[in-house]
Amino acid sequence: MDALAGLPEATLLRDPASMEPFLRDESHVRGPHPLAVVRPHGPRALRELVRLAKAEGFGLVPRGAGTGKAGGCVPTERTVVVDFSAWPGDIRVSPQDLCLHAPASAPLRDVKAAAESQGLFYPPDPNSWESCSLGGTLATNAGGPNACKYGMTRHWVLSVEALLEDGEIHTFGISSVKANAGPALGQLLIGSEGIFGFIVGATLRLMPLPREYATLLLPVKHWEDLLDLPGRLCGAGFLPSAFEFFDPAVLAELRAHGPEEARRLPGEALAILEFDERGCTSEPFLEALHDLLGPVAEGLVIASDARQRNGIWAVRRMTSAFLKERHPKKVSEDIVVPRSRLRDFFAGLDQLGIPAVTYGHLGDGNLHVNLLAAGETEPALLAGQLMGLFRLAVSLGGTLSGEHGIGLAKREAFLALSDPAQLQALRAIKHALDPAGIFNPGKVI
Amino acid sequence: MDALAGLPEATLLRDPASMEPFLRDESHVRGPHPLAVVRPHGPRALRELVRLAKAEGFGLVPRGAGTGKAGGCVPTERTVVVDFSAWPGDIRVSPQDLCLHAPASAPLRDVKAAAESQGLFYPPDPNSWESCSLGGTLATNAGGPNACKYGMTRHWVLSVEALLEDGEIHTFGISSVKANAGPALGQLLIGSEGIFGFIVGATLRLMPLPREYATLLLPVKHWEDLLDLPGRLCGAGFLPSAFEFFDPAVLAELRAHGPEEARRLPGEALAILEFDERGCTSEPFLEALHDLLGPVAEGLVIASDARQRNGIWAVRRMTSAFLKERHPKKVSEDIVVPRSRLRDFFAGLDQLGIPAVTYGHLGDGNLHVNLLAAGETEPALLAGQLMGLFRLAVSLGGTLSGEHGIGLAKREAFLALSDPAQLQALRAIKHALDPAGIFNPGKVI
Repeated sequence: MDALAGLPEATLLRDPASMEPFLRDESHVRGPHPLAVVRPHGPRALRELVRLAKAEGFGLVPRGAGTGKAGGCVPTERTVVVDFSAWPGDIRVSPQDLCLHAPASAPLRDVKAAAESQGLFYPPDPNSWESCSLGGTLATNAGGPNACKYGMTRHWVLSVEALLEDGEIHTFGISSVKANAGPALGQLLIGSEGIFGFIVGATLRLMPLPREYATLLLPVKHWEDLLDLPGRLCGAGFLPSAFEFFDPAVLAELRAHGPEEARRLPGEALAILEFDERGCTSEPFLEALHDLLGPVAEGLVIASDARQRNGIWAVRRMTSAFLKERHPKKVSEDIVVPRSRLRDFFAGLDQLGIPAVTYGHLGDGNLHVNLLAAGETEPALLAGQLMGLFRLAVSLGGTLSGEHGIGLAKREAFLALSDPAQLQALRAIKHALDPAGIFNPGKVI
Repeated sequence: MDALAGLPEATLLRDPASMEPFLRDESHVRGPHPLAVVRPHGPRALRELVRLAKAEGFGLVPRGAGTGKAGGCVPTERTVVVDFSAWPGDIRVSPQDLCLHAPASAPLRDVKAAAESQGLFYPPDPNSWESCSLGGTLATNAGGPNACKYGMTRHWVLSVEALLEDGEIHTFGISSVKANAGPALGQLLIGSEGIFGFIVGATLRLMPLPREYATLLLPVKHWEDLLDLPGRLCGAGFLPSAFEFFDPAVLAELRAHGPEEARRLPGEALAILEFDERGCTSEPFLEALHDLLGPVAEGLVIASDARQRNGIWAVRRMTSAFLKERHPKKVSEDIVVPRSRLRDFFAGLDQLGIPAVTYGHLGDGNLHVNLLAAGETEPALLAGQLMGLFRLAVSLGGTLSGEHGIGLAKREAFLALSDPAQLQALRAIKHALDPAGIFNPGKVI
């Protein structure tokens, strides 16, 4: 690929050792060495890359911070990794327009901090928010605990700039939520994992920064009492900004082997709830919550200051790493089950004999199902268990990915479990927007 | 079109007189008589219609309640109007899943009422909410005053069922906001005005019903003071659920010729603000608002009960009809200007010499610009004025349609003012999803 040597506005990595970190993300998927890793510094690099990709027949794989969980940024055969970490641009907040503009390379933590510095709030909060890039969250339509109140990344994007197959960057949308001039191509690009083009920047919608938080640690006497709670709370007028949970098996692991503070946790299962609306720390609000939650709780804790709030969230945040340390070869899945079918889901999991522990986002039915013994399970058996899990979620009206996407990791399952006519429509759109097949080949479809 | 006579599961209208009401919507656009108007009662009718449309080479034009403002449901040459008003299905609320499912035929007011009956809330509130159908709001991604806080229709749709070119109905999405299994085809269908397929039903996201409203009538001493207010309020932590306004010219019309209560309105211009969050009727909340708004207000009124709230909204609701009665041939446009550019917009309008009065949604920059003298303006001059208006909005980073869509009414302007590469992408997708060109031909692109 000597043609790449002359790329303008770009840094090039070509020796195998320096490309090594680009072969994987935070999933189990590992790709072959790419032809090169290119860090574009401007639009000329992208224009030339697109031209070369078409002329030489190689593919382009977009990469942000590499924190994805589905292998979406992992190279496939005969590809060049386009690492957007050096893509130029500042984060510019426009308080009058209640929005900010940022390049894809901006770390999400900087995006959120820039909004906060003006008393404003950008809600999306994937677990990787302190390490991921904005671009990765746009490509994957990232979620997080806040999604149960605020929705996903796509709900907060006003416009995107994206590289299309003509080699140019085009803007889709304006800086207002009101914009109905033609079909929403920007929404099609968000969450499409780079298969139609690459998002290089975006204008994000903001709202006033919450000024109060009520954070609750809710151990429950009976695990199943937890499953109705999201609906009951909302029916009573309470919309939590986060509703996380740990099933009895995860809680037992934490209690037996976790850090000191986790060993004293009571109850059969555990939830963490947070409210962020005005007045949520007032006596009447908390009393009403207490009335609702008291009957199912075994020792409800309501954080009374930031230290206590952080302590509660620390339990949630350490869970993934804790389980990974205890079970290095575990497989963590990301599925969704409608909240009204959670009982059926857990019964189905038992019936299938899939040995799993589960935690995640109860507020929107997004479950992280962990197969702890995956390392010791015969590969064909493990594959069967995963497919059984996905089929169960889909059969209950759920889906096989809530927030991580499809990428390479779930491609086969996605193809097997999707409506053939929808796959056909996706392939037709892929061919329409990327006839040469240069954008993230081999991913999703 | 004798082939239509045998359509299963359908009612057929074919005589010119009974088809008359189907030649127009609430825009100025009027179409030719269609080949027929078909009211499908089930999927077999749609399957057969698609087959016939392909075989006989006619187009299908979707129609809900006919309250659109861009001619999207108006027939073009050699088309059959597919009137979804009899499409079957009930509105089913699932409080546990915080969602409801409804057929496209459901009146939006029934959808909103069904949610409210369970203490839940479906925010989208286009001005036609008491007369439009859900299907129309999905096809056009309808907005309304609430959009400045809650976003557009698309932000509240979890999944859609849509008729594709294979003649079958396919479901895109699940009943949770977390769903990342492949690109968002459902989002592409919402707001695409039926050019890729027809939406026949949807699952909508709900939230707890607001329990308090603070509604404010804000006459301002100096018109321009209004323009910074949305940003200033949000920076201070206040996000209104509606922020409507009337410019000095509309206020003058209301004062001179409007109903009794409008004649006493003080100030140079007028705004209506509403808050719907918990605690918004409390003393401290209203005092803080008073501190913010007092300096620019000339006689701020805060509604203290439902009667007063309705009185304030009545002024807003009657404005369109009032202006229409006074100026029957007026043209009302729907554009967006970024809030930070509102001063530049009004200066630009002056400079262009476009005689217009403006009211609308200040909270998101969505302006309804009314050319009152359109009836007495020479057509070519009027067309030039409209194009000048659109160009001005676009040049300031806005767009030519905020909530009404493109349809037939704005198709030419849309084609003239759009990025050619994006039009090319839209046409490629259209060809990919509807190769025979049967879905709403001649609209948008």
